[in-house]
Amino acid sequence: MPELRKDPIIGRWVIISTERGKRPTNIGRPERRVHPHACPFCPGNETATPPEIIAYRKDGSEPNKPGWTLRVVSNKYPALIIEGSLTREPQGIYDRMNGIGAHEVIIETPLHEMDLADLPAVQIRDVLWAYRERYLDLQRDHRFKYIMMFKNQGEPAGASVEHSHSQLIATPIIPKRVAEELTGAKKYYDYKERCIFCDIIRQELTDQDRIVAETDSFMAFEPYASRFPFETWLLPKAHMSSYIETEIDMHTELAVILKEVLLRLKQGLADPSYNYILHTSPVGDEYREYFHWHMEIIPKLTRVAGFEWGTGFYINPTRPEDAARFLRELTIPKETISVW
Amino acid sequence: MPELRKDPIIGRWVIISTERGKRPTNIGRPERRVHPHACPFCPGNETATPPEIIAYRKDGSEPNKPGWTLRVVSNKYPALIIEGSLTREPQGIYDRMNGIGAHEVIIETPLHEMDLADLPAVQIRDVLWAYRERYLDLQRDHRFKYIMMFKNQGEPAGASVEHSHSQLIATPIIPKRVAEELTGAKKYYDYKERCIFCDIIRQELTDQDRIVAETDSFMAFEPYASRFPFETWLLPKAHMSSYIETEIDMHTELAVILKEVLLRLKQGLADPSYNYILHTSPVGDEYREYFHWHMEIIPKLTRVAGFEWGTGFYINPTRPEDAARFLRELTIPKETISVW
Repeated sequence: MPELRKDPIIGRWVIISTERGKRPTNIGRPERRVHPHACPFCPGNETATPPEIIAYRKDGSEPNKPGWTLRVVSNKYPALIIEGSLTREPQGIYDRMNGIGAHEVIIETPLHEMDLADLPAVQIRDVLWAYRERYLDLQRDHRFKYIMMFKNQGEPAGASVEHSHSQLIATPIIPKRVAEELTGAKKYYDYKERCIFCDIIRQELTDQDRIVAETDSFMAFEPYASRFPFETWLLPKAHMSSYIETEIDMHTELAVILKEVLLRLKQGLADPSYNYILHTSPVGDEYREYFHWHMEIIPKLTRVAGFEWGTGFYINPTRPEDAARFLRELTIPKETISVW
Repeated sequence: MPELRKDPIIGRWVIISTERGKRPTNIGRPERRVHPHACPFCPGNETATPPEIIAYRKDGSEPNKPGWTLRVVSNKYPALIIEGSLTREPQGIYDRMNGIGAHEVIIETPLHEMDLADLPAVQIRDVLWAYRERYLDLQRDHRFKYIMMFKNQGEPAGASVEHSHSQLIATPIIPKRVAEELTGAKKYYDYKERCIFCDIIRQELTDQDRIVAETDSFMAFEPYASRFPFETWLLPKAHMSSYIETEIDMHTELAVILKEVLLRLKQGLADPSYNYILHTSPVGDEYREYFHWHMEIIPKLTRVAGFEWGTGFYINPTRPEDAARFLRELTIPKETISVW
């Protein structure tokens, strides 16, 4: 059973999950490219994963058989497990609880060779919609305080399977990074009575020099104090604290701008590995005046990250304004990011 | 001029340093091993670095000429620069200041082929002593609030030059990670009236199962809530909030245990890249009842780090107790870690 252990000094919970360490590809050098017929996420290999939780199928095909366009399954090597009780307890001066949670994999496409950025926008919309659908299901479990959706693209960014997928982790605690954002945003709200993200949006739309892409309802920009070169945030322009407030009609537009941003990064930075993480309001308190959901996209550019990783001190060698201009000025053919 | 920019939401300062981005080896793939005669840190190439700030020389040789055993120079590609004034100012809703600070390189040995772990303990003692000596000089500059000593060993850990070296950065702000530790430790002290690190030491000495190495005055252990596999902390057993309280007689012992820990990591984990960071009390307020200096050593094991890096959520696949036993049970010949 995985464990959650609390750092006694700064209060951060860490998952100790030895099962996950036994994953065949977890330790060591990058594995060779898996031939599709051996890929657990490819059609025809449905039995190589735990049974599907949901799947999108257009042809009325059977569960756990080919025919799906998107599939959500439990992670075969979960960081947290769903069965059991939390059991908070002391261990000397330390604190621990059982590693209860959900860890799911969203298989984004049946096509092994396709990256998320290359999928039609409608397929990306389905991925984004699946996040929301899984969220709405998992939020009913009162043990969960937070549901985090994220994607690791490429081995340097931590992906252990090449076939394009995202992940979802539901946790019995609020991750530290999210808690910090909530606290910071609350403090600003208490002082200004405005959402800090809404103020940032206004500032960015005025300055214009950190904007990467924009649609009617969404914008993508390089944050003023970007930690990493080409760090890009994507968020709704109107105040919306939880991702679940984003309805289906907005999801198509979100898919279009996400695709555009990913294509700009891919084209401009020679197909980098990247992570993105969806930051949304915690479970059970989704509607807040002071928080604003957003997606943080971080390309993993070799070398640049080493320094920061080690010291916890961020040194960014690329001005966000320069990164934004570079990305903005790339020519992405309009038809590439059309919906279908 | 580098800039310090503040994240408006969580209050973290980030260095935007484009000069650093122009370093020849900064972006892209690992460079080839530099042949010693082209290495800027090798004897004979002293003019390839800025002039030395201090050097240890046993033979009375001239500054900036061969003959040194250790050399401290300004970083040729500094993240922060020493000349100028801080000039804090708003930029719309954002906050910035000039990137004032010191960024130095400690060249640990004249021998290009030697890792820190392989140096005689007396030479490691000199490295550790140089940290203290530089600290004592830089703390007199009232613009600096924090002085951070750290080492990146190996390209995956962010080292851009192969020749063994550490770095020092003096900053006009307290780095977020340190501020969090101070706040957490203070909270504990306010409640318990004891240093949390001293309590952790007591707990670890009782439990014994996370101890990696021990001397009369120091201990190395795997923290209860380790973020990374084989994350190892090294600290003085007696309360000591600042690294500068550690006198020369203790430095030899510190060098011996640091060498032992680095050798255990090197032998057990096939010579991993690693980072270490010295956490000490901020400048100007070095003597605190609630803080305790320590060194955090983090081997960079491929793949394992990707997940955490992207999500800000730590999943550790190795129980600290298992990591400690593995490291403790390795046979390191006693003569290897002798002082001379």
